[in-house]
Amino acid sequence: MNLIRVNNVLKQMEERGMDHLIISDPSSINYLIGYDNHPGERMYALVLSLDGHHTLFLNRLFYLDQELDLNIIWYDDTEDGPAKIAEVLKEAHCVGIDKNWEARFLMRVMELANEECCFELGSICVDYVRMHKDEEEIDLMRQSSLLNDQAIDQVIQLCAQGNLTEKQVAKQLDGIFQSLGCSGNSFEPIVGYGANGADGHHGCDDSTLKPGDSIVIDMGGLYQGYCSDMTRTVFYKEVSDKQREVYELVKKANEAAEAMIKPGVRLCDIDKTARDIISEAGYGPNFNHRLGHFIGRDVHEYGDVSASFDMPVEPGMIFSIEPGIYIQGEFGVRIEDLVLVTEDGCEVLNHYPKDLMIIG
Amino acid sequence: MNLIRVNNVLKQMEERGMDHLIISDPSSINYLIGYDNHPGERMYALVLSLDGHHTLFLNRLFYLDQELDLNIIWYDDTEDGPAKIAEVLKEAHCVGIDKNWEARFLMRVMELANEECCFELGSICVDYVRMHKDEEEIDLMRQSSLLNDQAIDQVIQLCAQGNLTEKQVAKQLDGIFQSLGCSGNSFEPIVGYGANGADGHHGCDDSTLKPGDSIVIDMGGLYQGYCSDMTRTVFYKEVSDKQREVYELVKKANEAAEAMIKPGVRLCDIDKTARDIISEAGYGPNFNHRLGHFIGRDVHEYGDVSASFDMPVEPGMIFSIEPGIYIQGEFGVRIEDLVLVTEDGCEVLNHYPKDLMIIG
Repeated sequence: MNLIRVNNVLKQMEERGMDHLIISDPSSINYLIGYDNHPGERMYALVLSLDGHHTLFLNRLFYLDQELDLNIIWYDDTEDGPAKIAEVLKEAHCVGIDKNWEARFLMRVMELANEECCFELGSICVDYVRMHKDEEEIDLMRQSSLLNDQAIDQVIQLCAQGNLTEKQVAKQLDGIFQSLGCSGNSFEPIVGYGANGADGHHGCDDSTLKPGDSIVIDMGGLYQGYCSDMTRTVFYKEVSDKQREVYELVKKANEAAEAMIKPGVRLCDIDKTARDIISEAGYGPNFNHRLGHFIGRDVHEYGDVSASFDMPVEPGMIFSIEPGIYIQGEFGVRIEDLVLVTEDGCEVLNHYPKDLMIIG
Repeated sequence: MNLIRVNNVLKQMEERGMDHLIISDPSSINYLIGYDNHPGERMYALVLSLDGHHTLFLNRLFYLDQELDLNIIWYDDTEDGPAKIAEVLKEAHCVGIDKNWEARFLMRVMELANEECCFELGSICVDYVRMHKDEEEIDLMRQSSLLNDQAIDQVIQLCAQGNLTEKQVAKQLDGIFQSLGCSGNSFEPIVGYGANGADGHHGCDDSTLKPGDSIVIDMGGLYQGYCSDMTRTVFYKEVSDKQREVYELVKKANEAAEAMIKPGVRLCDIDKTARDIISEAGYGPNFNHRLGHFIGRDVHEYGDVSASFDMPVEPGMIFSIEPGIYIQGEFGVRIEDLVLVTEDGCEVLNHYPKDLMIIG
């Protein structure tokens, strides 16, 4: 058990008036107790209690090969797992619930709970703590992004050959990451040629490169459990004036956003800075997503860089800055870095160049 | 909308006293309305109503390129999606909830619902209908398993070379399925050499073959949206008396179970037949999982062939029969087929031989 992390979560529970918290997200459980489990469809839950009696609920089919310094309650497939949780909640007044917990467990626990017990969404208690990376995590996130810098260079060289389809390039990424010491991709990579790069729903296909195509490459690896995520856009053989204008605009938005990041600045204002630059040039409707997302053990963690998130940034936060402009049927440009908020500014974790690059 | 399937679900709702049903499983929604969507973390729900007014809730970021003959309510990331569902449930008395629906949506809908409205788990209404495959589905399941018969032959030939690690073999499966016209694997395949085949938690690794190793191969492909799933166990170069005894026992259990399947026989009794054969030979504790699971659009669908499932089988049901014996530290044997319940018996969908095979 990582006592510092658990205590930080207990503090959040106390502030929010919850005496118990049910955590079902395997990634959050791993973060708190250092046990990596893949429960599939079976019930898996860590119940934290303000009184310090924490309990992990495990199915007998799960594999546990380590000592865990907390109570463990085992159940098997013939038993009523949620009833065992309800038993532990006998004295509970207010129980926080993991936002992703499935109805089949939650509804049974609620049915068995004492009448006065209230239930509310509670994963913010863990999510808030996970937003603030500790030194160990920061170190791993830095290394993970450095490896992504190396990996994208190989991918751009593959594209420069000019004879590979999107799929053929994308298929090699997992192996490239593994050769660099990662476990593989942290998400399904995007390699989008020409108009495909403007389509947010595009899966890599058999398209080949034509001179003048933009190439949107959105990729990340998983290094010792921590994700990288970077996007670069390069051009094949030639670039039109419109493409150059759009590229420089996206780059300006990316750099302006990164330049303003320091403790106290609100996430929504970072989004606004980038969005205003793009909107003032007339491309507002072509930037149809949030500016960024938090990241760490999961590629998408709690926290947005968007108009609807007015939290001020704090040291240790790591999120993406990824403005984009998508001209349907023509081309797309997105430039994405991960940034770490420091005591007096931010550190951009990606170092791969952002100047307009023509390859092939 | 597939009216026959939807009407079958409405019948189930009526029988169980639900006037509305919230379905969030993308696979179930696709089954009912023929729309394939991958909602990621965003809310996606089909609400069926006994009064015939069905509504699909879509995020503006979802991609819809077809006409759907039902009400569609769009929401975007700045809007309260669950509140839009609650609005549709204003007159509801009893709402069935998808067993996998996430707490972040469910708790908000419950909070906004009228006080008299009751909520209960309701996905059984769809799951029950999905247990009974219609002609179109049966045809696809047959074809999917025929392709698996072909694929496993290639895999066994790869193993027979004797120089490939588990991982090297497993990595080729996706491509083998694609070359046969499938979209790829229907699940992460298992190739387990020797003692690895006895470990239920084993992921394919860099192990190589030794003479006398058993090889457990558990694999399936996805053909036009329908899954296959088969296991065969073969031996490399030689087989010991104990391995032969265990193999024949598992085969006998597999065949006895398949021989008794016909409408009216209970799933738990099929499990018992196979389990008794294994237990009577003293290997009961070495068969530590259910005999089978239902399958179709998903590899694991609702329904078990196990002691806790006493439903009688009915025509159109498709499930696996997969007895196994696992001798920790030594070897494992599992033999799995998919079977289709017919009017007067069953049809085994896999045709790959089950006689003991020594390769290499």
